[in-house]
Amino acid sequence: MAIITLASDYGTQDGYPAAVKGVLKTLSPQSEIMDITHRLSSISKTALVLLRYYLEFPLGTVHLVVIDPTVGSSRRAMAGQSGGRFFVGPDNGIFTKITDEAPNSEWVEIDPANLPSRPISPTFHGRDIFAPAAALLANGVDLVTLGRPIKDPVRLSIPRPSREPGKIVGEIIDIDSFGNLIINIPGNDLGSRPKVVLERNEIAFARSFAEVDRGSPLAYIGSLGYLEIAVNMGRASEYFVVTVGSKVVVEL
Amino acid sequence: MAIITLASDYGTQDGYPAAVKGVLKTLSPQSEIMDITHRLSSISKTALVLLRYYLEFPLGTVHLVVIDPTVGSSRRAMAGQSGGRFFVGPDNGIFTKITDEAPNSEWVEIDPANLPSRPISPTFHGRDIFAPAAALLANGVDLVTLGRPIKDPVRLSIPRPSREPGKIVGEIIDIDSFGNLIINIPGNDLGSRPKVVLERNEIAFARSFAEVDRGSPLAYIGSLGYLEIAVNMGRASEYFVVTVGSKVVVEL
Amino acid sequence: MAIITLASDYGTQDGYPAAVKGVLKTLSPQSEIMDITHRLSSISKTALVLLRYYLEFPLGTVHLVVIDPTVGSSRRAMAGQSGGRFFVGPDNGIFTKITDEAPNSEWVEIDPANLPSRPISPTFHGRDIFAPAAALLANGVDLVTLGRPIKDPVRLSIPRPSREPGKIVGEIIDIDSFGNLIINIPGNDLGSRPKVVLERNEIAFARSFAEVDRGSPLAYIGSLGYLEIAVNMGRASEYFVVTVGSKVVVEL
Repeated sequence: MAIITLASDYGTQDGYPAAVKGVLKTLSPQSEIMDITHRLSSISKTALVLLRYYLEFPLGTVHLVVIDPTVGSSRRAMAGQSGGRFFVGPDNGIFTKITDEAPNSEWVEIDPANLPSRPISPTFHGRDIFAPAAALLANGVDLVTLGRPIKDPVRLSIPRPSREPGKIVGEIIDIDSFGNLIINIPGNDLGSRPKVVLERNEIAFARSFAEVDRGSPLAYIGSLGYLEIAVNMGRASEYFVVTVGSKVVVEL
Repeated sequence: MAIITLASDYGTQDGYPAAVKGVLKTLSPQSEIMDITHRLSSISKTALVLLRYYLEFPLGTVHLVVIDPTVGSSRRAMAGQSGGRFFVGPDNGIFTKITDEAPNSEWVEIDPANLPSRPISPTFHGRDIFAPAAALLANGVDLVTLGRPIKDPVRLSIPRPSREPGKIVGEIIDIDSFGNLIINIPGNDLGSRPKVVLERNEIAFARSFAEVDRGSPLAYIGSLGYLEIAVNMGRASEYFVVTVGSKVVVEL
Repeated sequence: MAIITLASDYGTQDGYPAAVKGVLKTLSPQSEIMDITHRLSSISKTALVLLRYYLEFPLGTVHLVVIDPTVGSSRRAMAGQSGGRFFVGPDNGIFTKITDEAPNSEWVEIDPANLPSRPISPTFHGRDIFAPAAALLANGVDLVTLGRPIKDPVRLSIPRPSREPGKIVGEIIDIDSFGNLIINIPGNDLGSRPKVVLERNEIAFARSFAEVDRGSPLAYIGSLGYLEIAVNMGRASEYFVVTVGSKVVVEL
């Protein structure tokens, strides 16, 4: 029994994810559908959110991801795999971290002619193209039977930190629901006692929240492996005047 | 293994849907529970949301739907089926589209005496009446064993478009989470180049969002089969000053 | 196939619950994961929410609950059981109602050395400690193999009503998403015609909403077995100027 995870920006209140689930269960009755979220908020954030979970699921899992503002345009419908994990969604950059960094990923453009026949709404490919493709993959159908190879998936320009001797300059790439700031500097690149500076404030580097006083900020290596800045029992996003894109300097 | 879908207005934060799920799994351990939403917002919208998903699920699926402001009054608890798809919920109009339009639907008033014995809270029939009834149906129990037939289910007065020669006057019946406007005019009734007018604005008719400029409105046949109005990469609900009930005129 | 329920304060939008689900399905492929909520709002409310659902689930169910503001501090990771129902989460008071009131509950401090080996983030024990422990319990592993017994779990100080002859003084312990007020006075302690007074207003005691006029308040025994105050078709939390902690007097 394969797992199909489902992430979208549909919200639940209108019944859109429900329609997708119905199609999945009709075409792949043995599969188990797992909700990830229906509150995806941007393509760039989606690329990051996917990193938080896709490797945790068993091999064979199909990750269906739909945030699709250009549905019905010439943007391609895409399916892919890397190391036995499958991905289905629009070719708009949401899979950039997989296409760029996952080993040996391969991708195809989904041709609806290869899917079980159904009318295709030009505004709801989640239901009419992506769900059928995900169901087939969950059923063990070979990726290459879905369509022609894609060698040039759309890639987001994800900001990378700049490195100088003794110094890394990165930036905030996400603010999570706790108000924690996620920074594009891998924890592996930090020394044991890095000096972290955000907007001229030096932030204490710690292992966990409890090492600083309640209400005080700290920098630490977050659960995704990146540098993060938080406030113990508080919200760093309110403590500091920052946004996604604000610079963070680490002196090693 | 039957599927039981669960839609409610409970929100998740208080644990109400959780209690319903527990009852379902206790009484029907083999069933698979699928969340639809816990943010149903009105009876009339619920009638429409149900249309988005119920036909997509496999035959035998039980659709449990609870938005129940008159719980504990004389309103009846209802179960029904049409073409091998089952429905359970309060008799308050949420199933109007099924009772009116689905073929050969039949309905019964759930008599709690026919359910596994448990105390019945006068304020939580979702847990104490609807969930047990849904579990029995998922287990294959015959609908008619749940109670006496209902021949007069409560029906919402759903606005219908008026038709004149060369012209249809409909209205907005829903605004979805993307700000798209759903109009009660079936796509099948439109010619190939209808002229769509909303609040004196003529709206370009297109097949999909990308056919108009970013930020421009368009009319199109939506994924539910009805006429819709959207703004490419924007929110029609903010672009236009409209509400549910606003008139839309189509000149054929 | 065991059930693992999952309640957290993670929100869904960042992918945190998704990571937890992935770990659960990897370590316990046969288990069924059921979302409770990802919007837990406080430790004290969580203790109450758990009461709404845990007894409804089948024996053997593992209830994973994570609201963990002191993650990474010296607070213990805890697992327990009572009557064949299992619990996993931080030792911060969320299980107070179980430790205090459930029969013969037993608890252990989870020692990560007893879990399948994986790196442990100091800020995401939901993924790295609680999920693996829950998966093991769902697989039938004996509770005592997870760690040493805990005899002194952290307990919330949950306000109890004071009793005088002919009178009980309680307080609002929760306001649910419908605006209903939940009061810490068990329904069993009320006579047949109690006089309920909130902020000098006497509230009509009724069995269900429909017994009072639309827009009128009522007191009733709620679905959790406690006294509640609601407004028929309205929100008691807006009708009255009250908060959690406001006093309610019942004259018997």
